[in-house]
Amino acid sequence: MTEIPASHRDMLERPLFGHLGTVKPDGAPQVTPVWFVWDGEFLAFTTSTQRRKYHHVVANPNVALSVNDPEQPYRYLEVRGTVERIEPDTDADFFFQLADRYGFEMGRGDLGDAPYRVKILVRPTHTTQQG
Amino acid sequence: MTEIPASHRDMLERPLFGHLGTVKPDGAPQVTPVWFVWDGEFLAFTTSTQRRKYHHVVANPNVALSVNDPEQPYRYLEVRGTVERIEPDTDADFFFQLADRYGFEMGRGDLGDAPYRVKILVRPTHTTQQG
Repeated sequence: MTEIPASHRDMLERPLFGHLGTVKPDGAPQVTPVWFVWDGEFLAFTTSTQRRKYHHVVANPNVALSVNDPEQPYRYLEVRGTVERIEPDTDADFFFQLADRYGFEMGRGDLGDAPYRVKILVRPTHTTQQG
Repeated sequence: MTEIPASHRDMLERPLFGHLGTVKPDGAPQVTPVWFVWDGEFLAFTTSTQRRKYHHVVANPNVALSVNDPEQPYRYLEVRGTVERIEPDTDADFFFQLADRYGFEMGRGDLGDAPYRVKILVRPTHTTQQG
């Protein structure tokens, strides 16, 4: 199991935006800003089965997350890993756990795609860091 | 040619950090923070022929850049594109053009890898944006 270096663990613990890279079936990358949470074993993301990101990781479970420190922009952490599990989140509990973590106010009734929500669990395999 | 939407063009004009996704020869993504500049036709990055990113784009020219707005974090732009040219930057002029753009103070004598520096020019093919 890959350890997240202690020097950069705060970057997964703080509610910073990550930029998640996935690979499309044609072999080209996609990168989009994401919410995430780190539980010491898995990096977890929310998406829905209607999104491209979901279809990419079903076909190719390799992902990479890049986070930089807004207060020290040359300090960064990249975590590469593999999607190990995809769990249904049809009650959107995980979505709202992330929304709370990121201070995003949204009513449950406003999340139209709850029936399609999933929790994506990534096991880190490599890290690269600077600063 | 893909137009960058006028609503999000400022995100390429401001010296914001981008997160550049490339694909490794094994099909897994890599994402790292980068400096970039947009000239209306190409997104340009600096790297060196000693870096993994260089070898990735030589083997697979597809890249994606994700930028979010630090003042409005749900506002973002993703630009996907193709590396069209790689130019030598062995005098590091392009490197220091970027360093100036990002307010990074560094003496020319401190850049050890100048002989290996290259300028990577990406032609956008698709954009995705929000906010």
